[in-house]
Amino acid sequence: MKRYAIGLDYGTNSCRSLLVDLDTGQELGSAVFPYPSGEMGILLDASDPHVARQNPRDYLDGLVAIVTGALARARETDPTFDPGDVIGIGIDTTGSTPIPVDAEGTPLGLKPEFAGELAAMVWLWKDHTAYAEAAEITETAARLRPQYLAKCGGIYSSEWWWSKIWHCLKVAPGVFAAAHSWVEHCDWLPAVLTGNTRPETMARGVCSAGHKAMYAEEWGGLPDEEFLTALDPALAALRPRLYKHAVTSDIAAGGLTAEWATRLGLREGISVAVGAFDAHMGAVGAGVREGTFVKILGTSTCDITVAPLATGVADIPGVCGVVNGSVLPGYYGIEAGQSAVGDIFLWFVNQLVPDRYGAGLEEKFIEMEKRLAVLAPGQTGLLALDWNNGNRTILVDVRLTGLLLGQTLHTQAHEIYRALIEATAFGARTIIERVEEYGVPIDTVVNIGGLAVKNATLMQIYADILGKRLKVAASDQTCALGAAIFGGASSGRISLAAAQQNLCAYRERVYDPIPRNQAVYNELYALYKTLHDAFGAPDWQGSLGHVMKRLLEIRARAAAGNAGA
Amino acid sequence: MKRYAIGLDYGTNSCRSLLVDLDTGQELGSAVFPYPSGEMGILLDASDPHVARQNPRDYLDGLVAIVTGALARARETDPTFDPGDVIGIGIDTTGSTPIPVDAEGTPLGLKPEFAGELAAMVWLWKDHTAYAEAAEITETAARLRPQYLAKCGGIYSSEWWWSKIWHCLKVAPGVFAAAHSWVEHCDWLPAVLTGNTRPETMARGVCSAGHKAMYAEEWGGLPDEEFLTALDPALAALRPRLYKHAVTSDIAAGGLTAEWATRLGLREGISVAVGAFDAHMGAVGAGVREGTFVKILGTSTCDITVAPLATGVADIPGVCGVVNGSVLPGYYGIEAGQSAVGDIFLWFVNQLVPDRYGAGLEEKFIEMEKRLAVLAPGQTGLLALDWNNGNRTILVDVRLTGLLLGQTLHTQAHEIYRALIEATAFGARTIIERVEEYGVPIDTVVNIGGLAVKNATLMQIYADILGKRLKVAASDQTCALGAAIFGGASSGRISLAAAQQNLCAYRERVYDPIPRNQAVYNELYALYKTLHDAFGAPDWQGSLGHVMKRLLEIRARAAAGNAGA
Repeated sequence: MKRYAIGLDYGTNSCRSLLVDLDTGQELGSAVFPYPSGEMGILLDASDPHVARQNPRDYLDGLVAIVTGALARARETDPTFDPGDVIGIGIDTTGSTPIPVDAEGTPLGLKPEFAGELAAMVWLWKDHTAYAEAAEITETAARLRPQYLAKCGGIYSSEWWWSKIWHCLKVAPGVFAAAHSWVEHCDWLPAVLTGNTRPETMARGVCSAGHKAMYAEEWGGLPDEEFLTALDPALAALRPRLYKHAVTSDIAAGGLTAEWATRLGLREGISVAVGAFDAHMGAVGAGVREGTFVKILGTSTCDITVAPLATGVADIPGVCGVVNGSVLPGYYGIEAGQSAVGDIFLWFVNQLVPDRYGAGLEEKFIEMEKRLAVLAPGQTGLLALDWNNGNRTILVDVRLTGLLLGQTLHTQAHEIYRALIEATAFGARTIIERVEEYGVPIDTVVNIGGLAVKNATLMQIYADILGKRLKVAASDQTCALGAAIFGGASSGRISLAAAQQNLCAYRERVYDPIPRNQAVYNELYALYKTLHDAFGAPDWQGSLGHVMKRLLEIRARAAAGNAGA
Repeated sequence: MKRYAIGLDYGTNSCRSLLVDLDTGQELGSAVFPYPSGEMGILLDASDPHVARQNPRDYLDGLVAIVTGALARARETDPTFDPGDVIGIGIDTTGSTPIPVDAEGTPLGLKPEFAGELAAMVWLWKDHTAYAEAAEITETAARLRPQYLAKCGGIYSSEWWWSKIWHCLKVAPGVFAAAHSWVEHCDWLPAVLTGNTRPETMARGVCSAGHKAMYAEEWGGLPDEEFLTALDPALAALRPRLYKHAVTSDIAAGGLTAEWATRLGLREGISVAVGAFDAHMGAVGAGVREGTFVKILGTSTCDITVAPLATGVADIPGVCGVVNGSVLPGYYGIEAGQSAVGDIFLWFVNQLVPDRYGAGLEEKFIEMEKRLAVLAPGQTGLLALDWNNGNRTILVDVRLTGLLLGQTLHTQAHEIYRALIEATAFGARTIIERVEEYGVPIDTVVNIGGLAVKNATLMQIYADILGKRLKVAASDQTCALGAAIFGGASSGRISLAAAQQNLCAYRERVYDPIPRNQAVYNELYALYKTLHDAFGAPDWQGSLGHVMKRLLEIRARAAAGNAGA
């Protein structure tokens, strides 16, 4: 008897599905649906670059397309495949991506009377219109409820739940008044599929609640009325129409309704897991567990690991999110991140790499990688800080900028590129060391994302700098894979651990630290950490006169060693 | 009755002449002679990149070519011109450029028995073979004669007199033994023209002696025997065959010999001034005097000013050369410099500027200047240190490197170029402030060199950062002009001051600080100085957490102000 699950991954510009065999891990089928609305799925406002909204209709249209598409592909892969053997569906989405809904849980954006009203649509994670509200929430919480802020690294973001809802109240009071409640995108889709869309009773995931809505069991769920009243009494009045409890994604939001079973071609009543954010389910799809640190290497990074509740790591200074159950049930989910990684490389190649390295971006990257790969650690003589977009973890400070040091009259672009790669790895090391200092040892780092697959030199540099074994997830779709794992686990017919065991695999090539390189990078990291603290830690006092000279010494040794090698 | 003088300027790759009217300042004729030997006049050694020698024959061939050339040009310019009205010749050369000579003062390199022997040729200023000897001289002087080191900024250079002579002793003892004495290039040519080439009696200039040979009246001339013995007894044995006194260039080395008068087409017996280095005579040609600071803006800078002897500025910490009479008689000559200026810009445009700015270097510079010119001070958000080639003044430390700070994901190449220009101007300001702190007030800065003529934006940035009026010398050949001034003055028929008055002129366009810009740059300079001291001053202790945030504030203000302007 076969057991399959489907994972659905709702991204920024498209959604995609993955149908997997829960026992063998075989990926049988997949489909992608680009959102048809707006610019690549995003509704923009020409008068305000901060606006980023989505059309909930795209989510429903995509749902049918990607599920039926995956089933069709699966039948091609294996003619004996029977959709009746799909036992669960899991869903991840971007976030915080709140949707104003009516009392039945219908998004206002789907109702004719709100046609063309951007505030009634879905507020996409990257909408930054609520920056003023975010600042006021930060200020108010610092004064009244510092414990709320401690959970999210000291600064509440304009990308998050309360900032956006409050901004809607201010700029579109009609929409706010018409919204009986608000629902995260990742909670709304399971609610739709299971027919339980009433805001007060639909299942709500603890991942989005804990990371973005200041929800924690230790203070009784959502922020209390007094605090919300201090922001605006209308927010306090909304609180009872939101939710009291949020749960983990190994739990079923309900069973698939007959109507949706028919539309999707699946069996009625199969389990639909509680939803969560893409990065968190992606980490599960990449095999996150105690001691494993998952880095999603993209334009920025999202870093995720877990620690058993017994560890008691509720607060790790500078680590933005430590949420009970947000990744795996029974564990604190620990979320960190670097504000820019791939974005720094892209900036550099776009702005500062001459065309003799190649005609286009791709060629320039390839040529630079070829030339930097033959350099020994330290041989560039350069040291950089990876702060071109601020520092999210562990300094939690957007008002920081990049730094490059050690350049001579001979420094070349590929050497700087190497220094920038190293800087992002040093930044990653500060995060892992901070987590370890607070009692969460890490033995393995799993990288996912295009950079991890394509750039072997980068991976070896990361291994050497982090001093850990690095693996790359086998699947190209770890988010959808993680969603499928939860879909399967929520059925009760396979444990989450077993599903992870069966489905999470790694590419053959692993990257182990090379001791000789590690030794040099430990020296360089000490200098990085000095600069990091000197420019980033408000209370730093010290001296820096040794930094340039130490780099020159290390460079001379590296050049001599490399020539002899 | 007309009075003319000829200035001869011996550079690294060629020599050139300038014939001027001492009363009107009219430049009547000029000629250039590229040295025919070696690579662009430099004798290289394929096995050692530090070697840079020259053929003394080139100097003599050039002498005839450029003097007769200038006379021919002058006759074209003014058919009534009479070479008999030329009353003096002045000569400047590169340095320290020592020549091993026999007892008659003939360069060993001109003698057949030394054909093909590089050590017997002229040791060009940029020859760096003697780096080990330089280090040992520095170490020995620090121990035994700290006063010698204080005069040259604490580090004796491989480019200088004693390092090179000592290196010759070590690597070519046969040449050293055959050399009765050694002569600076700038002293040898006047000796030849005046027929007084005997090493013990020929005129020696205080400019080269004081700056490069550790000569000072206060300790009785050249370094004492005990010190030289500590280096090598052979150097002490050489001392009596060198010279006892060195003099200023307003003094005649002698009169032109009949033989040379015939060869050059000049009157026998006219005055030939004592020689000096190019930068020093160049400063005189640019009108240096009390309160005027001359910057020769090239790949690096050489900065020169003067202070009356009464000021007593014998030691200015971090300022490499303060030598009685090295620029103007009756004044201390003060020499400083920045290790890289144009070289930093060239490095940047060669290595880090994409081709969308233009196909070649020139086009890239022009396009970048166009785009950075519209930015307000502070608008880049960037701050750089100008240390890609170390810091000559005021830190006197070659083991320093470049730094760039403030870059975001939007920083563009022309913004970095602006930051690099500003960094070199901030570096210039540290030098001028240091000189002023020691009692030498500066009211005017005169820039000479290609950058000063071509780059008006750079000049305005310099004026705004230095807070001084900036002028550009009118002549394109201030070195040869300065040599002509000394040629005239040495005749006794016109005073040095009158010759300078008549010959030194400035371009019409002067650059005055714009108060609004100056205010912003004062803020940025405070941050530059903080970084300068933090990374460059060995004993610095402090904090830097404000630097990036202050830059972001200044950037925001600048952008708002510029948008409103």
